[in-house]
Amino acid sequence: MSNAKTDIFDAVEVGNKVSKQDYKAALQDLRVALINMQYDLQQAGFSVLVLLAGNDRKSANELLDVLHEWLDARYLHSHVFLPPTPHERDYPAYWRYWRVLPPAGRIGIYLGGWPVRALAERLLGGGTDALLDRRINHINALEQCLSNDGTVVLKLWLHLPKKAARKRLQQAQQNPDNEPYVRQQDWRIYEHYDDIVPVAEHLLVKTDTGQAPWNIIEATDARYRNLTAAHAILSSVRRRLDSPAAEAAAGLQAAPLDIPAPAGALDTVDLGASLGRKEYRKKRESLQGKLNRLVIEARGKAATVLVFEGWDAAGKGGVIRRMTSALFAEDYRVFPIAAPTDEERARHYLWRFWHRLPGPGKLVIFDRSWYGRVLVERVEGFAGEDEWRRAYFEINDFEQQLTAHGITLCKFWLHIDPDEQLRRFQAREQTGYKKYKITDEDYRNREQWQAYTAAVNEMVARTSTAAAPWHLVPANDKKWARIQVLETVVAALQRRR
Amino acid sequence: MSNAKTDIFDAVEVGNKVSKQDYKAALQDLRVALINMQYDLQQAGFSVLVLLAGNDRKSANELLDVLHEWLDARYLHSHVFLPPTPHERDYPAYWRYWRVLPPAGRIGIYLGGWPVRALAERLLGGGTDALLDRRINHINALEQCLSNDGTVVLKLWLHLPKKAARKRLQQAQQNPDNEPYVRQQDWRIYEHYDDIVPVAEHLLVKTDTGQAPWNIIEATDARYRNLTAAHAILSSVRRRLDSPAAEAAAGLQAAPLDIPAPAGALDTVDLGASLGRKEYRKKRESLQGKLNRLVIEARGKAATVLVFEGWDAAGKGGVIRRMTSALFAEDYRVFPIAAPTDEERARHYLWRFWHRLPGPGKLVIFDRSWYGRVLVERVEGFAGEDEWRRAYFEINDFEQQLTAHGITLCKFWLHIDPDEQLRRFQAREQTGYKKYKITDEDYRNREQWQAYTAAVNEMVARTSTAAAPWHLVPANDKKWARIQVLETVVAALQRRR
Repeated sequence: MSNAKTDIFDAVEVGNKVSKQDYKAALQDLRVALINMQYDLQQAGFSVLVLLAGNDRKSANELLDVLHEWLDARYLHSHVFLPPTPHERDYPAYWRYWRVLPPAGRIGIYLGGWPVRALAERLLGGGTDALLDRRINHINALEQCLSNDGTVVLKLWLHLPKKAARKRLQQAQQNPDNEPYVRQQDWRIYEHYDDIVPVAEHLLVKTDTGQAPWNIIEATDARYRNLTAAHAILSSVRRRLDSPAAEAAAGLQAAPLDIPAPAGALDTVDLGASLGRKEYRKKRESLQGKLNRLVIEARGKAATVLVFEGWDAAGKGGVIRRMTSALFAEDYRVFPIAAPTDEERARHYLWRFWHRLPGPGKLVIFDRSWYGRVLVERVEGFAGEDEWRRAYFEINDFEQQLTAHGITLCKFWLHIDPDEQLRRFQAREQTGYKKYKITDEDYRNREQWQAYTAAVNEMVARTSTAAAPWHLVPANDKKWARIQVLETVVAALQRRR
Repeated sequence: MSNAKTDIFDAVEVGNKVSKQDYKAALQDLRVALINMQYDLQQAGFSVLVLLAGNDRKSANELLDVLHEWLDARYLHSHVFLPPTPHERDYPAYWRYWRVLPPAGRIGIYLGGWPVRALAERLLGGGTDALLDRRINHINALEQCLSNDGTVVLKLWLHLPKKAARKRLQQAQQNPDNEPYVRQQDWRIYEHYDDIVPVAEHLLVKTDTGQAPWNIIEATDARYRNLTAAHAILSSVRRRLDSPAAEAAAGLQAAPLDIPAPAGALDTVDLGASLGRKEYRKKRESLQGKLNRLVIEARGKAATVLVFEGWDAAGKGGVIRRMTSALFAEDYRVFPIAAPTDEERARHYLWRFWHRLPGPGKLVIFDRSWYGRVLVERVEGFAGEDEWRRAYFEINDFEQQLTAHGITLCKFWLHIDPDEQLRRFQAREQTGYKKYKITDEDYRNREQWQAYTAAVNEMVARTSTAAAPWHLVPANDKKWARIQVLETVVAALQRRR
């Protein structure tokens, strides 16, 4: 019943595929756009550094080949870094990366660069968590240093889900000739899959900065992987090329590319889920009782933060009332988050949430939250692109401080489809006491459905961490949604006992 | 004989003092400027956060009082953070800082904020180096987050030299009434002075970013301390207020303040130092022999990097020749660093130095170096203010990678006075084969003597770390300079055996 995205890799496991036909069609424009981008880049005088990493060595090698085919290899500097040679060990660790930095106007692709090295040290070389944190310090300092200097730093993580990894290895055993890339070490990666995930997540979340963001790409389908990676490079470089300053200087123009939006986490939600009235009542009463006891039991001890986001009319209010009606008023508070007050506007956007954190044993519910930064503020343009891009790092850092302190944090996205939303808007207009809830703005927001979908998918992909996962709740059926939320919260409070 | 600045605190121990009369005179304008700044700040809509820290609790408290007197306290939010109370411990560690962040238009002063807390944990709370590094990660993330949001973050470290600390404690013992601020814990700080220095240096260097720089202020003389701290606040805030964008928006104008430039590290160099010819010869030959043997002994082992900076005509070339004439050609290389080539210009400014790092056993001499970024590029405007301000962090990070790898790094500033430089310029014009060395540009540079002095002093203050100290070499007498450099290098190579 759960749609929890249990870590940042899990959040991209949505089964994206591209058909042969669609691939062929998309390639035409894409390859022209890539070559044009390289030409414009030469004029523009900054450099591009693409770091390829992931749990899928084979994919990374294939992708490198493909990029060499699609890009003009004369202006491409690619480097494969293996474990350091004795000669390389004679120099400081980053020497081998600095030496071959791409010059202005060129694209450098590093396969197995510093992120992979940091992971290998920790996972294979017996390095400690403290060493990894020191490496993270260095990585952020280095990437910031390059980015401040004008280099576009772009990091691609190719993620092969566990099942797909097993399937590929089994095929390779049966037909070694068809899978020439598969080696013994891929078995090792597969066997340590579950050990790698938390370490890799830690590294990625702590180095996913606005200046040098990670793109986690589902690598199961080669065509999808190739298109998505190339498109990520194209759009990052074009963004810099076409920024107002560059545009004015060089007269460059972006040619928007017609690539279908890939499926995201929201596409994995089964909106058909529903629950009968009788079963709902029974479950609800039992869960409310459990919730009540768990919260009383936690008094003076662990605190809880619940975050509710979702489409307008998705039923956040109803879900929240089903929770709070089970609780004593002294144990919880609900904060509806609307446009900031003057006092809040005068401070950092996270300030009003820090201010409202629960003390020991308390439960705090945010009806909308800090995620407004990467949802409404992004889509409506209230936050600049730089602002919402760096917000993922800020939010992960914030949430990590909460969970490290022992606060239980559950994040819910209540999901409905546009038709259901329209039905609810119209129903509200018929209901006297709900009429005030519908404004013209609600209808306007519907036009932005696609833009919001992209924003939600990116939010889930970048902020679903093991310590603070997103729960995507099918809410076309309100009863189902209420039960799923209650169950998730009860389970979380039981786990921490 | 040594003028080594053995750590970043040592580099500010220059004995700055301000007379009662000068203080009174400076205060008039300063206080008006501070009040005007606060008024302009209210209009400008960003906030200012001043973090007060240091090894001098008494000074910090006095300074806080003074700032309260000089600034309009209605728009000032100051907070003293003691070790966390049980109530504060109920929340994530940074909660207490976030809660009281100053709103837009206001100045917040934190005494004992996160830098002090991180040090206390490490020095008094039994925290590990790894924990301190994690804290540094957090500090940088937080300060960047605030700075990105528009807050001016400014950090003042009040440094009381060891001798001055002892003197004050002794006075307090004799006359407790005159030193009401002195407490038992100040004795503890004094007794652990030498343990505190390296830990504090590590914290400061790793958090001295372009966005949230440290200002280390010599705290021995209260009047100097007050003026310098107030001026640091004033100039940081005015810089933001008067940046082109803000100026255009608000029509604000800076009123430059007439405060005499404080003494810096260069003022501590005794330019009268000299050496007789005979003694020079004897010492030189002995040192050259030692150097030769040490470099041969190091073959295939530890590498060495020597950095030479100094005024035009200070004698860098002569010093370098006295070193290299003692060495076999295979063991060393000299890189004269002039304006970058096209190939170098197309990459990050540190690239050409990474590229030239010595392999095992080799000795590399840079005749001018990466410090060009914060010297000539700063003074001549080739680097923007943001660029050279963040370069201190980049340079410290770079050098730390070299020394952590085991490379011996010695940095020399050859110091002469303007009169001596003029004599040398004129003498060169008389000497046929040296004539080409003097151009109009050399004379133009002389006009910038003051600007270069300020840049050198700031460079020494921000980059004299224990692992890579600056050696300030009196070079009015060439023989003295050559011997001091040889001695320093020989001592460094002996130490690492």
